Amino acid sequence: MEGIDNFGTIEEMLAAVPSIEAVSLCMPPQYRYVAATKALAAGKHVFLEKPPGATLSEVEDLAAQAASAGVTLFASWHSRYAPAVEAAREFLAGTRIRSMRVYWKEDVRHWHPNQAWIWQAGGLGVFDPGINALSIVTRILPRPVFATAAMLEFPENHEAPIAASIRFTDAEGLDLEAEFDWRQTGPQSWDIVAQTDAGEMRLSEGGAKLAVDGQLLHAEPEQEYPQLYRRFGELVRSGQSDVDLAPLRHVADAFMLGRRKVVEAFHD
Amino acid sequence: MEGIDNFGTIEEMLAAVPSIEAVSLCMPPQYRYVAATKALAAGKHVFLEKPPGATLSEVEDLAAQAASAGVTLFASWHSRYAPAVEAAREFLAGTRIRSMRVYWKEDVRHWHPNQAWIWQAGGLGVFDPGINALSIVTRILPRPVFATAAMLEFPENHEAPIAASIRFTDAEGLDLEAEFDWRQTGPQSWDIVAQTDAGEMRLSEGGAKLAVDGQLLHAEPEQEYPQLYRRFGELVRSGQSDVDLAPLRHVADAFMLGRRKVVEAFHD
Repeated sequence: MEGIDNFGTIEEMLAAVPSIEAVSLCMPPQYRYVAATKALAAGKHVFLEKPPGATLSEVEDLAAQAASAGVTLFASWHSRYAPAVEAAREFLAGTRIRSMRVYWKEDVRHWHPNQAWIWQAGGLGVFDPGINALSIVTRILPRPVFATAAMLEFPENHEAPIAASIRFTDAEGLDLEAEFDWRQTGPQSWDIVAQTDAGEMRLSEGGAKLAVDGQLLHAEPEQEYPQLYRRFGELVRSGQSDVDLAPLRHVADAFMLGRRKVVEAFHD
Repeated sequence: MEGIDNFGTIEEMLAAVPSIEAVSLCMPPQYRYVAATKALAAGKHVFLEKPPGATLSEVEDLAAQAASAGVTLFASWHSRYAPAVEAAREFLAGTRIRSMRVYWKEDVRHWHPNQAWIWQAGGLGVFDPGINALSIVTRILPRPVFATAAMLEFPENHEAPIAASIRFTDAEGLDLEAEFDWRQTGPQSWDIVAQTDAGEMRLSEGGAKLAVDGQLLHAEPEQEYPQLYRRFGELVRSGQSDVDLAPLRHVADAFMLGRRKVVEAFHD
């Protein structure tokens, strides 16, 4: 980009500008680990875009490297900073949840046109947006959940799923289901709906709006990235890391546990 | 079994014999969580046979429950107690590893005849033995590894893989490959071979024998289960838990990262 320094590799950048204190990595997850390792070894704080890596194990390793180097590693989940997420968490903490349904359905042709990496093994497919839902769900629920069954739909010409449905429960027997689909045209759905003793909670538009029994309780302007970087700054100043792998762990669990169905080929 | 008390459910057993201090759970992993939760809630120490659960997330949850209850949870990996595993670990700690190959190839018809659960989604398929190899590899290597590519072969009539090959590396660029196959007839292979600066290390027969450059260094009688239960006793007495999820995490990573190939139907 004009007026902004460019470098061919992260090593060149770190060598040319030693005053850099922190780096933010947002390349496809399959290429994240090597860059992160170099930055951590150079004593830089590291911000990882979601998902934090192609495997859980590599991110665990990065967390250990950051701890050894005494620098901050932040595995970020931008959707957790959507405006109404904390309000939803507080609402759910004060009631009993009877069931929860997650609908994350969007048009991949609109949001990820011609992104080959997302369809390759390790690219996660529909879990790339779905993990945003999981990052919210794991934030707003009062107890940890785990998958008990899943169905993943793979287009016959791709290595990553185009749709997935997952059943979860928790130690109290919560009834939770998530549906992810990349074939949604028309209106897009990024909604989490819970039936509770205090009414029907609807967290909609990707966490932007909260309504209970149809009454809008919370709708503030979107500020995900300013909040994310504020959080990163706080972590750096306080010498802490924040590496919550729960959303990626649920994805890996769904791949391990899930049944697979091959569906018709999909072309951009 | 005659002469041994039998109960229809774990609740009946815990109610009938309150003096029980610990339980060992070895049912298929898909059914482990509920029984473990009941035992932990009753204040019992819990031993989990491998693999410790059908998902990583449920075992993380059990670990938190055990910590809250102040009891021991032991996620056991019996192959780590094979006679020559510690000797292999010590050998590798003293040299540089150039490459490592893992061959875990056995005849499923012999070892798991008519076990439907192992072919169902969540039953892990060839990773049921393969995870034994991974439990050894993660014990003997000096640094954590992570998968970078995998190929999983699913019989067209089953939901779990019959074969898998996985490439791993580590922060130093280790060259590690594992091959798991359930279609091996004739001699069975449970071997880990490393090329090192101190020669070729071969840990064979599932960890029973260690040889370097063809010279047998270690071959003691197999005592995996006595050692496992000794370890469980130590954990209970010292008030600790031991829940190392690394082997199951590598399996989940391979499912998430791996390419899939459908191969011919397989019948017991």
